[in-house]
Amino acid sequence: MSARERTGLVIGRFQPFHNGHLEVIRTIAEECRSIIVGIGSAQCSHTFENPFTAGERYLMVSRSLRDDGLQDVSIVPIMDINRYAVWASHVVSLVPPFQVVYSNNPLTRRLFSEAGFEVRTSPMFNREAYSGTEIRRRMSAGDSWTHLVPKAVAEVVREIKGVERMRDLSSSPPSGRSGNDPVEGSGEEP
Amino acid sequence: MSARERTGLVIGRFQPFHNGHLEVIRTIAEECRSIIVGIGSAQCSHTFENPFTAGERYLMVSRSLRDDGLQDVSIVPIMDINRYAVWASHVVSLVPPFQVVYSNNPLTRRLFSEAGFEVRTSPMFNREAYSGTEIRRRMSAGDSWTHLVPKAVAEVVREIKGVERMRDLSSSPPSGRSGNDPVEGSGEEP
Amino acid sequence: MSARERTGLVIGRFQPFHNGHLEVIRTIAEECRSIIVGIGSAQCSHTFENPFTAGERYLMVSRSLRDDGLQDVSIVPIMDINRYAVWASHVVSLVPPFQVVYSNNPLTRRLFSEAGFEVRTSPMFNREAYSGTEIRRRMSAGDSWTHLVPKAVAEVVREIKGVERMRDLSSSPPSGRSGNDPVEGSGEEP
Amino acid sequence: MSARERTGLVIGRFQPFHNGHLEVIRTIAEECRSIIVGIGSAQCSHTFENPFTAGERYLMVSRSLRDDGLQDVSIVPIMDINRYAVWASHVVSLVPPFQVVYSNNPLTRRLFSEAGFEVRTSPMFNREAYSGTEIRRRMSAGDSWTHLVPKAVAEVVREIKGVERMRDLSSSPPSGRSGNDPVEGSGEEP
Amino acid sequence: MSARERTGLVIGRFQPFHNGHLEVIRTIAEECRSIIVGIGSAQCSHTFENPFTAGERYLMVSRSLRDDGLQDVSIVPIMDINRYAVWASHVVSLVPPFQVVYSNNPLTRRLFSEAGFEVRTSPMFNREAYSGTEIRRRMSAGDSWTHLVPKAVAEVVREIKGVERMRDLSSSPPSGRSGNDPVEGSGEEP
Amino acid sequence: MSARERTGLVIGRFQPFHNGHLEVIRTIAEECRSIIVGIGSAQCSHTFENPFTAGERYLMVSRSLRDDGLQDVSIVPIMDINRYAVWASHVVSLVPPFQVVYSNNPLTRRLFSEAGFEVRTSPMFNREAYSGTEIRRRMSAGDSWTHLVPKAVAEVVREIKGVERMRDLSSSPPSGRSGNDPVEGSGEEP
Repeated sequence: MSARERTGLVIGRFQPFHNGHLEVIRTIAEECRSIIVGIGSAQCSHTFENPFTAGERYLMVSRSLRDDGLQDVSIVPIMDINRYAVWASHVVSLVPPFQVVYSNNPLTRRLFSEAGFEVRTSPMFNREAYSGTEIRRRMSAGDSWTHLVPKAVAEVVREIKGVERMRDLSSSPPSGRSGNDPVEGSGEEP
Repeated sequence: MSARERTGLVIGRFQPFHNGHLEVIRTIAEECRSIIVGIGSAQCSHTFENPFTAGERYLMVSRSLRDDGLQDVSIVPIMDINRYAVWASHVVSLVPPFQVVYSNNPLTRRLFSEAGFEVRTSPMFNREAYSGTEIRRRMSAGDSWTHLVPKAVAEVVREIKGVERMRDLSSSPPSGRSGNDPVEGSGEEP
Repeated sequence: MSARERTGLVIGRFQPFHNGHLEVIRTIAEECRSIIVGIGSAQCSHTFENPFTAGERYLMVSRSLRDDGLQDVSIVPIMDINRYAVWASHVVSLVPPFQVVYSNNPLTRRLFSEAGFEVRTSPMFNREAYSGTEIRRRMSAGDSWTHLVPKAVAEVVREIKGVERMRDLSSSPPSGRSGNDPVEGSGEEP
Repeated sequence: MSARERTGLVIGRFQPFHNGHLEVIRTIAEECRSIIVGIGSAQCSHTFENPFTAGERYLMVSRSLRDDGLQDVSIVPIMDINRYAVWASHVVSLVPPFQVVYSNNPLTRRLFSEAGFEVRTSPMFNREAYSGTEIRRRMSAGDSWTHLVPKAVAEVVREIKGVERMRDLSSSPPSGRSGNDPVEGSGEEP
Repeated sequence: MSARERTGLVIGRFQPFHNGHLEVIRTIAEECRSIIVGIGSAQCSHTFENPFTAGERYLMVSRSLRDDGLQDVSIVPIMDINRYAVWASHVVSLVPPFQVVYSNNPLTRRLFSEAGFEVRTSPMFNREAYSGTEIRRRMSAGDSWTHLVPKAVAEVVREIKGVERMRDLSSSPPSGRSGNDPVEGSGEEP
Repeated sequence: MSARERTGLVIGRFQPFHNGHLEVIRTIAEECRSIIVGIGSAQCSHTFENPFTAGERYLMVSRSLRDDGLQDVSIVPIMDINRYAVWASHVVSLVPPFQVVYSNNPLTRRLFSEAGFEVRTSPMFNREAYSGTEIRRRMSAGDSWTHLVPKAVAEVVREIKGVERMRDLSSSPPSGRSGNDPVEGSGEEP
C-alpha cells in the first residue's frame, strides 16, 4: 500500500475544534487518502475543561472540514475506558480500518506502536495562538475568540448557546466530583 | 424551521448494511436537509448475530452513501447502555443536534417522544428481500448475498474477510455467554 | 434486641406494587419496629416485564403505605449489580441498618445467610389473585386490574399514563437486546 | 398546578446531615407539598471526605425529618454516573415525579434547566456555623460537633461508631486511589 | 523459541474443575514449559450454572495441579467484559506473557488469531464421562460425583459446603435476572 | 485452627515488586501455612505511577517467590471497583479462602475488620531503601535500580523492555485523564 492510499487516524478532544486542529488535519490530508478524526473523551461535557458534548464537537468538526473542502473524512466519538492496556483495541473496534496514527503524545504513540501500527509525528502548528485552554478562558471571560476557530465552529457555538454555558460553568467550583451537591455549603461548594 | 431544514435521526445495527437500509435513508433524505445515522449496539462484534465491529459498519455505511451521492450525513457509533430511562439522553449527547426521529419500533418511538422529539414512521421497504438475518445466513451457508447489499458493502466485507469470519462464528455454539471457555466440554461447548 | 425492636428488609421489583405486596408488608410490620422496602432492578423501566421506573415504583409504594397507616418505613431503590458474591454488601451499603431479611427466594436467603443475617420466610398471600405478571397482562390487554392494587397505585398509574405505556411496550417484540434498531427489518424487529 | 401542590427536589451528600441542611429543607417545605431528598454520591463511603454509607445517611435524614415533624418526604440514594449529559435523566428515573429543583450549584441548575425543570435558588443558612467539612474535621480531631447536627444524627453516628471510623480514616493518607495497597511503603502509603 | 520453552494459555470456567480438565492440562504440559490457566467468568457465582466463586475455583485448580505434581503453572481469574473486540487484549493484560493458546472454541481461536497468537487444538478427553453440566446435576440430585473430579476438588467442595449450596440454588427458578425479588409471586419467583 | 494452619492475605500494587515486598512475604510465611498475594489496581498499566500490567506483575511475583523457595502461594490480580463498602466482598470472591489479613493501611484494616476478618500488622522493612516510587524514578532517570529488586524482577523488566516503557511514560504530561488527545496543544498536552 503506497503512502497516498493509507488511512490516517488522529484523536483529539476538540473542546472546541480550532484553527490549529484544522491545520493539522489539512497536513495529514496531504499524506493520506482518508482520515479518521476520533473525538476523545466523548462521555465528557458540561464541565469547564470539557464544555461541549461529543455530538456538538462532531458538528464543529464536520462543518469545518466540509467548509474547508476536505473529503473522505470519518468522524468517530470515542468514550474513555480508563484501561490503557485495552485502549488501542477499543479504538480499533470503533473506527474504520486505518494504517497510520498521527500523535505527539508518548502514551498514545506507545500504545499504538505496541499494537503494531505505524505512528507518525503529528504536524506542528502555532500553539501559542491556538489552544483549547486559552479559547475556553476567553469564552468565559468575554474576550474575543472567534478568530481562533473556523467560521463553522463559531456558528455551532452560537447555535447551541455555548458561551452562555461556558459562563455558567466557570462560576462552578473546580471540583467536578462533588458537583451534584447543592446543599452542602449552601451553593458555594457544588 | 421548515421540514426541509430539519435534521433526521435513524438508528440501526446494520449487520450488515443492505439495500433496504439504503432505500430508507434515501427516502428520509427527501424530507430532511441533514441525516444522522446511528450505528446501534456499537460494542457488539464477532458473534453470529453481530459479526461486524462498529468501525467496519461505519465504513459500509459511509462508502455506500458516498457512492449513492448522499451528502450531509453524520455517522455515529452508539454503544448500548441498557438503561432505557436514560437512553434518549445518551443518544442526544453523542450525535449532532436533530429534530426528527425515524423509527417504527414502539420502544424507540416512545423514548424519543417522552424526550420531546418529533417521531415519524420509518419508510417501508421490501423486507422479504432485504433482511440482515437472511444475509448473515447466506454468508455463512455459502449462498449468494452480494446482490442484496450496496456494492461498497460487498467490497468492505471482502477487504475485512467477513465471510470467513461468519463461517468461523457459525460453527460456534449459540450461547455467547460462556464463550470464553475452551476446556469445559472439550471444544463442543464454547 | 427484642423482635419488636428489629428492622426487617424486604425486596421486590413491584412492577407494579399490588395488594399481595401490601399484605406481606403489613404482616412484617407486626414483627418489626421498622421496615425497609428495597425496590429491586431499579435501573429497569420501559420494557413489558419492567414497565415502571424506580421513581414511579417508589411513589406507588410510599403512597400505598401512607394510606394504609404504616409508619417507619424506608423505601430504597436498588440497582442490580449482577455479581451475586457482592450483592449482599451492595444492599447493606444502600439501606439503613437492619437485622432480619424476609424472603422465600433460595438465592436471596442464601446470600444474606452467608453474610450473617437472620433470614425469615416471607409471609404468604393469595398469589393466584395477586401477580405482577397477570396485572401487566391485564393492563396491556385492556382488562380490569385496579381491584388488584392499592388505590394509590391506580392513581399513580393514571398520573404517569402507565396503561398507555404498557400498550405501547406490548407491541414491541420481546427481544429487548436489539431494541435500539428501528431500521433492521423495517419496524417489525425493534 | 399551584406552588403549594408542587414536589421539590433537593440533592446533597449529607456527610453528615447537619442543622444547615435541616433549615434548607424546612424552608422548602413551606413552598412545596412534597419534598424529595436525594442522597448524592451514594456509592461513596469509608473515606475522610465521604465517611458514611448511603444507608447510614438515609437513616440520619429520615430520623431527623421525622423528629422535626416534616411529612411527605421521599429519600432516595443516587449513585454518581459521571456523565453529566445524562445525569438529569438518571435522577428523574430514580425519584418520584417532581416539578421544582432547589439548588445554588451552577452545574446542577444548568442540567435541570436544560432538561426543562423549574430551578429555584436554594434557601440560605449560616454556613459559617454549619459545614460538613468542619464537622468531619471536628469528629476526627475529638472536638465538639453534636451541637451542629440534629439530635437524631448524633444518635446514628453513635450507633454506627462513626467517630471511631472517622479517626481511623483520618490516619489514612489522602490518596484514596491507591488505598488497597498495604505493602507498598509499608503502611505509610495506603 | 523452541516449543518446549513456550508458555501456553488455556481458559475454562471450571464449574467445577474435573478430571477432563486435568487431562487437558497434563497434555499441554508436555508441549510447554509453563502453563497459564485462566479462570473465565470470574465474576459469576451462586447460580446453578456457575455455583463457585473465582476464589473457590482457584483453590480447586491449584490444589489439584499441586497434587498432580504439575509445576510452573500460573492461575489467573478473568472477569468477562462482554466486548469481544477487546477481549484478547483484556486477557493479555491480566496474565503473564504467553505464546500459544489452546482452544477448540471457534470464537476463542479467532480472537487470539486476530491478535497474532498461535492457536492450537486443545487436547481431547472423554467428554461423555467428564462434564461440568453432568457433575453439577449429580451434585444437586444427590448422585455420586467425586469419582469424576480430582481428590482435591472433592475436598474443596466439602470445605466450602458446595453441595449444600448447589441444592439451595437448584431450587431457585432459572431466570437469574429477577433473582433479587423475594416478594413478587410470594417466593415462587425469585 | 492453629496459627500455622492459617492462610494469610497481603495486597500490594507491586509497581514493581521489590526486596521490601519479598521480606514482608517471607515474614508472613513464618506465621501462615499458605499465603495469598493480591495484585491490586490490576486494571492499571502504562502510566508512570502504574507502568506494569497485572500479568507482568504476576510474573515478577511468581518468579521471585519460586526463586526464594516459597511454596503454597496463590497470586491473584484484583481490579479496583471504587466502592469501598463492597470491596472486602469483592476480594473475598476472587481469592481462595483465607483467615488473616496483613496490612498497615487503616482503610484496608477497617474494611476487613468490619467484614469479620482478623487483621494483623504487616511486617516492617527498610522503606528508605525499598520504595516503588524511588525505583520508578531511578528506572526513568537511568539510575541503578536492579539491586533493589529480586533478580527475577530485573529479568522480567528486561524481557518486557520495561525501562524503555518507563522512559516513554516519564515524558508524558502528568494528567493521565486527557491522555488520549494527541492534537490539543500539539503534543505537549497528552
